[in-house]
Amino acid sequence: MLDLSQILDLKHGIILASGSPRRKKLLEQIGLKFDVIPADIDEDDIVESDPAKFVMELASRKAKHIAAKNPNKIVIGSDTTVYLNQELLNKPAEEKDAYEMLTQLSSKTHQVYTGVSLVHNFSNNLTNFYVKTDVTFRELGEREKYAYIATGSPMDKAGGYGIQDDFGSVFVEKIVGCYYNIVGFPLSRFYQEIKDFNDKL
Amino acid sequence: MLDLSQILDLKHGIILASGSPRRKKLLEQIGLKFDVIPADIDEDDIVESDPAKFVMELASRKAKHIAAKNPNKIVIGSDTTVYLNQELLNKPAEEKDAYEMLTQLSSKTHQVYTGVSLVHNFSNNLTNFYVKTDVTFRELGEREKYAYIATGSPMDKAGGYGIQDDFGSVFVEKIVGCYYNIVGFPLSRFYQEIKDFNDKL
Repeated sequence: MLDLSQILDLKHGIILASGSPRRKKLLEQIGLKFDVIPADIDEDDIVESDPAKFVMELASRKAKHIAAKNPNKIVIGSDTTVYLNQELLNKPAEEKDAYEMLTQLSSKTHQVYTGVSLVHNFSNNLTNFYVKTDVTFRELGEREKYAYIATGSPMDKAGGYGIQDDFGSVFVEKIVGCYYNIVGFPLSRFYQEIKDFNDKL
Repeated sequence: MLDLSQILDLKHGIILASGSPRRKKLLEQIGLKFDVIPADIDEDDIVESDPAKFVMELASRKAKHIAAKNPNKIVIGSDTTVYLNQELLNKPAEEKDAYEMLTQLSSKTHQVYTGVSLVHNFSNNLTNFYVKTDVTFRELGEREKYAYIATGSPMDKAGGYGIQDDFGSVFVEKIVGCYYNIVGFPLSRFYQEIKDFNDKL
């Protein structure tokens, strides 16, 4: 098993400032040891229509919020959003929003943006980055959309789908970029960024 | 949960003619009900250097072998290979082969080919298709390669890596195409192919 703390000689403990079970699972997959302290940040006052800047701003607010009380930890903030036709698709509020999102995504290519922020307060170090992945959906049938919404899975996911889901797996025809970025965290880029970040500490 | 047999109105039972635990897991992920009967096919006598033809030939031999004794089932055969610099990389025989494969893959883009064959003997129906995905590795360090080989994971995988692995997740920088095809089975394309295949029966 990969032990990141060992292979990267990490100098401090890690906190994930996100309550997402998918992010937790992905970071466990690459052998990172960390605590989870979700940051409850209100995103409504972020007036930013550029998807890359939006996810980095939100990731950074989450990380800073938790780092304030944990100054000698490396805090990871993160946020994922779906971008289609110049519009951000966040989590659907109701089932009819999920239906509309799936209908919009059908037969189209959209972008998934994940922003990540790494903060170490004591040394005053902060890094923000984002990763973009293109995702192409095949044409979705009405029956599939209703059946997927009935599973409840779309409701806690940006854009109303999860590529790691039963239905999500068969909706996506092609991706360009990092797969794990679509699930919610860009593992490969993160590995390199935390390596560089740790070297500066 | 997606129930493929129901949503596609599948007319016959399904057999997966492959012993791969990853393929079994992927097909379970999309809610397919099936039995597993691994086909033991000798691939050494396949003289085919074209990767697409190679994986389809092997997939087809596996499916036909099992279909012969199960004429009223839909039998799925499949094979995955890795292709780099005009050369097929299959499973490493020894740890030093795994080391050589990882060294070759480092900082390069290779192709993963999965061939799939669907056979229904009674109606004399057969479909073969393949899916290709481009995979780009970042530069791998010596320490990472040794640590990965020490986990044992490279040994049962074409090309000596699994993208769903701890180390595999952080080795891959970018993919173009279907993610699940790299894991070992192209779920999205399969969903459409078995739908069409079933409609012909």
